[in-house]
Amino acid sequence: MRLSEKELISLIRRKLEANVTSAEVIVGPGDDAAVIAQSADEALVISTDALVEDVHFSLDWATAFLLGVKSLLSSISDIFAMGARPQACLVSLGLPAGIEPSFIEDLFDGMIRQANRFGACIVGGNISRSEKLFVNMTVTGLVHPGAVITRAGAKVGDSIYVTGELGGAALAAKCLLKRRINRLTVVRVESILRGDSEAPLTGSDDASLVELLARFFVPKIRADESQLLAEARICTSMIDLSDGIGSDLGHICQESGVGALVEIDSIPLFDMVPAVAMTEESDLTELAICGGEDYELLFTIDPSDEARLQQLLGTDVWCPISKIGRIISKSEGLIYLGKNGELLDQFAGFDHFARRAEGHRQ
Amino acid sequence: MRLSEKELISLIRRKLEANVTSAEVIVGPGDDAAVIAQSADEALVISTDALVEDVHFSLDWATAFLLGVKSLLSSISDIFAMGARPQACLVSLGLPAGIEPSFIEDLFDGMIRQANRFGACIVGGNISRSEKLFVNMTVTGLVHPGAVITRAGAKVGDSIYVTGELGGAALAAKCLLKRRINRLTVVRVESILRGDSEAPLTGSDDASLVELLARFFVPKIRADESQLLAEARICTSMIDLSDGIGSDLGHICQESGVGALVEIDSIPLFDMVPAVAMTEESDLTELAICGGEDYELLFTIDPSDEARLQQLLGTDVWCPISKIGRIISKSEGLIYLGKNGELLDQFAGFDHFARRAEGHRQ
Repeated sequence: MRLSEKELISLIRRKLEANVTSAEVIVGPGDDAAVIAQSADEALVISTDALVEDVHFSLDWATAFLLGVKSLLSSISDIFAMGARPQACLVSLGLPAGIEPSFIEDLFDGMIRQANRFGACIVGGNISRSEKLFVNMTVTGLVHPGAVITRAGAKVGDSIYVTGELGGAALAAKCLLKRRINRLTVVRVESILRGDSEAPLTGSDDASLVELLARFFVPKIRADESQLLAEARICTSMIDLSDGIGSDLGHICQESGVGALVEIDSIPLFDMVPAVAMTEESDLTELAICGGEDYELLFTIDPSDEARLQQLLGTDVWCPISKIGRIISKSEGLIYLGKNGELLDQFAGFDHFARRAEGHRQ
Repeated sequence: MRLSEKELISLIRRKLEANVTSAEVIVGPGDDAAVIAQSADEALVISTDALVEDVHFSLDWATAFLLGVKSLLSSISDIFAMGARPQACLVSLGLPAGIEPSFIEDLFDGMIRQANRFGACIVGGNISRSEKLFVNMTVTGLVHPGAVITRAGAKVGDSIYVTGELGGAALAAKCLLKRRINRLTVVRVESILRGDSEAPLTGSDDASLVELLARFFVPKIRADESQLLAEARICTSMIDLSDGIGSDLGHICQESGVGALVEIDSIPLFDMVPAVAMTEESDLTELAICGGEDYELLFTIDPSDEARLQQLLGTDVWCPISKIGRIISKSEGLIYLGKNGELLDQFAGFDHFARRAEGHRQ
């Protein structure tokens, strides 16, 4: 019997929830990170995540440095999605025999630089042999217990927002998997990030691909925005978009016991997505709903707090925020409306794990 | 260029240490766990560890339940080795396609039961697809900053002690790898641990193998003993024996800037080791020095504290403790003396990772 991701996760949660009875556990299994009471003012936030060779990346096209960057960013994103600030990271590596010293150097260079950007540092880890490379990253953070934002507080009538622009990472992944992007372009992303070379001229073909790839390897992490939101205490729920709106808004609906209505046209797409999607024969609506790995924030707020939200984040200093829909009752489910208000019912359910296993496996 | 474990670890440490400048980090890379300041009274202790299919275990002989037990125990052991008490665990699984629901159930049953034994609980985790199964366990704990016991405090003249009895886990691993132990015997260990069947009559062949196997799958974790030692503040250094005395005492020597002299005859072997080692043509001295995965504690104390140590742990309530040698100067190195005081110089250096990669890989 093969289990879907949803079935696997709900099986594990049932087992764990029956066991998590400690009063110390403020948020247990089933959120971006777990939250554990430490003192009246501070709680520990902790999350763990893995990137696996030939599932999440291929060494044919990923560089060690960018793999380090991505593993750190995708993990630290979970800490910000709880409204917390990151503190420490642990790296557990599964290393194939014959790994080059320069690979390890580059991997850690990528991680360290990104950890430092956010005031965190890598405090330890583990190495094991493994046939395929894996990078398991654990990140801890701290948060005031009252500022924690979970997936479980969305209420009927709340507005649904996302930060930034979506679809770029998923489209880049697609191009990488189909070998439509040359490894030299990947190396160019690394050089620019390392500061070894300058950004390509905007408007050139090269610039477009480099920018698209950067969406995949160097996701925008909304550190400052998430901190502002947490301090303002206006979000009723929040999640980082690792698996795409379809899957992640589904998590919020499930944990909050609500449904959601999303207007496709209001989902902000990264500006080079439409053109590249056309060349790649990718469906824009599917990219908007199912495209993951952008690590933007998806959050809900009471409409009465929207003015406050605009005050907080509505200037050019911060990333763009877009209202994409509203929370409806659980019985109405998760609904997507097309350009002309038509119901897009092919996106009702979506299993990221099955998709990954089929689509991302090399 | 292929790197040894030592070279890999020192490469990673060099990179990380240059970066860990935060005053919050009490113990950084290179110990059983990292320690991070939280308040005046409490520090966070955190460690991560992986078990990888066909490197650390084979699904031909391991059961999911016992794999869960072992992954939890081998990880939580690092927390106790710092003098801390465990609090929360996160499980990151790499799962091959087609994994059975019962496998996941059993794996978590094994983990949960062991976590509960020590007052910890599993608060979250992650699942990824992976060609080979891996179980990455992260455990956090708490400790008074003044009670932390690192690898770095051993002084010339200190006595070296180990808890319990060694060699059982390594010998069991050897028998399992050579398929000398039937999977039915492994299932029997699981049944006894689950309480489904009674322990076999001592003295029978079956009983011997079951007890030996239990050393591998259910290592003795010295929770209470480590807490007593931490509270008494008499240990100058401590480590858990995951890789064997040769490797782990080497870590203490390196971190403390000292050497060590060990009398082979004083290393306490698990009582069925000599007989089984004879059948398996295993060298007893090698088992004593290089046999890992017992997860007993190795610690050093000033000789003036030995009376206090006997008061603390010298009764039948606690596990046996054995003095196996003493700390000498760094220039004298790591020396093993045989039965008749002869120098055993073939054990001067030992690379667990290379051994694993060759010996443990299926």
